[in-house]
Amino acid sequence: MRTLEWDETTQQLKMVDQRVLPSIFSVIHLESYQEVSDAIRNMTVRGAPAIGVAAAYGMALAALRSQSTTLDLIRSDLKKAAQILEASRPTAVNLPWALKRMLKVAGQHYDDVKDLCSALLSEAHVMADEDVKVNKSISAYGAELIEDGDTIIHHCNTGALATVDWGTALGVIRMAFEQGKKLHILVDETRPRLQGARLTAWELSRYKIPYDIISDNSAGYFLHSGMVDKVIFGADRVARNGDVANKIGSYMLALAAHANNVPVYSVFPFSTVDIELESGDLIPIEERPQDEVLNLKLHDRLVAPKDASARNPAFDVTPHELITAFITEKGVIYPPFEETLIDKMGGI
Amino acid sequence: MRTLEWDETTQQLKMVDQRVLPSIFSVIHLESYQEVSDAIRNMTVRGAPAIGVAAAYGMALAALRSQSTTLDLIRSDLKKAAQILEASRPTAVNLPWALKRMLKVAGQHYDDVKDLCSALLSEAHVMADEDVKVNKSISAYGAELIEDGDTIIHHCNTGALATVDWGTALGVIRMAFEQGKKLHILVDETRPRLQGARLTAWELSRYKIPYDIISDNSAGYFLHSGMVDKVIFGADRVARNGDVANKIGSYMLALAAHANNVPVYSVFPFSTVDIELESGDLIPIEERPQDEVLNLKLHDRLVAPKDASARNPAFDVTPHELITAFITEKGVIYPPFEETLIDKMGGI
Repeated sequence: MRTLEWDETTQQLKMVDQRVLPSIFSVIHLESYQEVSDAIRNMTVRGAPAIGVAAAYGMALAALRSQSTTLDLIRSDLKKAAQILEASRPTAVNLPWALKRMLKVAGQHYDDVKDLCSALLSEAHVMADEDVKVNKSISAYGAELIEDGDTIIHHCNTGALATVDWGTALGVIRMAFEQGKKLHILVDETRPRLQGARLTAWELSRYKIPYDIISDNSAGYFLHSGMVDKVIFGADRVARNGDVANKIGSYMLALAAHANNVPVYSVFPFSTVDIELESGDLIPIEERPQDEVLNLKLHDRLVAPKDASARNPAFDVTPHELITAFITEKGVIYPPFEETLIDKMGGI
Repeated sequence: MRTLEWDETTQQLKMVDQRVLPSIFSVIHLESYQEVSDAIRNMTVRGAPAIGVAAAYGMALAALRSQSTTLDLIRSDLKKAAQILEASRPTAVNLPWALKRMLKVAGQHYDDVKDLCSALLSEAHVMADEDVKVNKSISAYGAELIEDGDTIIHHCNTGALATVDWGTALGVIRMAFEQGKKLHILVDETRPRLQGARLTAWELSRYKIPYDIISDNSAGYFLHSGMVDKVIFGADRVARNGDVANKIGSYMLALAAHANNVPVYSVFPFSTVDIELESGDLIPIEERPQDEVLNLKLHDRLVAPKDASARNPAFDVTPHELITAFITEKGVIYPPFEETLIDKMGGI
């Protein structure tokens, strides 16, 4: 199944519970936009493209479950739902992007509430299908850059699980592999939530792509050794100047790649571009609960002292100077990024 | 108690079992040099200065437990013991440094086997006491560099547990704190063995020094934010040109500090300097078992898929260009490092 799917029978949103992978493959059913908001917040669903589409379905659920009987009242419910969904995670711009798009659909003319509900659900379906199509297009452009025999460091999870299906950065790897290129992936485990060790490793095992998990802090060792050909990761929000907010650790990885002349590719759909934002320093960075850092066991023994505290920023910003190219559904984009980003967005 | 102590009654080496801290404080007794070698290999004891002194006691145990009855035979036993102890971990030079020193003592004139045994045990005691004295001296020099109000990122564990007592880089922090300077420490958790989250956090809690544990890959975020004043870590082997092998992750941390104009201090006794080694690229880097990366539970759930494999280099090399200064028992050393290192070692 896809990471997100609409259940026609129950009129619910089904999603793979990414918190319990890889040990358990569990599918949960969401009944309301509040449940979607919770699922985004607690990372049942994660990945910028996936949470964008989840929020779109959340808006459809808000309309479908609303008790309001007039179009005006339901539009007011939708605005409230959009606020709650947007607040569930602050960094990825795909979330407000999707909500804006759904509110635009809601603002059009309808004969009755039922029509509005169908239109919202249709739009969510369109966005889900678009996501997969866009990912394939991104991957086709990206796969051209990948060479036979490449060793690639990948950060976080950007695969099928981070999207509706197929993936972005991991989609590029997957397509290159399906083209017959021999690849070896060094999978950053991606502390604190370990999306690399848990989700990317699980996906690569399924695709039969050879990999080794590494601790994030060892990427520098491998980059300096000369064995790494490329570094590739996704994006949660790209500012107009090309600065990229992505999962915590991307910045240090890009610094180490840059210092060792290894190219760095950030892979994303244009829904991740925040063209109004001048630079990466303006991107809001989410700080998540301490227990994601502290509730860790090595060899079955709890790691941190009981009285320990932690800081847990979930994202960092990689300055555009460290990035070799962007891989998008509109092609590969090389520096200087700003002009091309504005051009391909059709203006600011 | 000290991290390592000699038990006069049982003629055994006692040590704190660092594998089970902070949940359990356990002291184990080692009877033979083989047990010392195992304890170094499996990281019951770790930290370059601590394993150096542990190996010295291992040599004393080799002599004390030997069945050989002549000085020549016992010297031959000691050579074999030194080989086995040296092979237990390859990167820290304190291990061969301590063994060389003990073999030199063994090579002197003695009236009988008993005399040789006493001389070796005395030398191990001297080295243990020297270690503490040297650490205090290092810390006095280092504390002068620490300012009131500093926020400091610290990597791995370099405290009392990494030495016989007091510590090196953490010793500097401890002394500055005891001088009344307000400090806040960002503790790199230090994957994969998590010496930061387990051992440094435990020590800081005991010393009442405020800290937060952070994932290693988030150091770049904090460094870029402007809130960090200094980065400080130890060393396992320093080459003649000033390149520093230290716990995996030090290199990426130093890169991120350098990119954000935050000073980087590497703190070590001169027993860590390998003056014969031209540059860091020649330092042997230990690769440890995969399970240290893979056998990890977040929120009580095993992280990696069952069929996953991992790479696990335990150290990396920070090029001397990224280091602001060395803090040693012979003072603070600024670049260019090579001339001063040779000078203070009294030649190559």
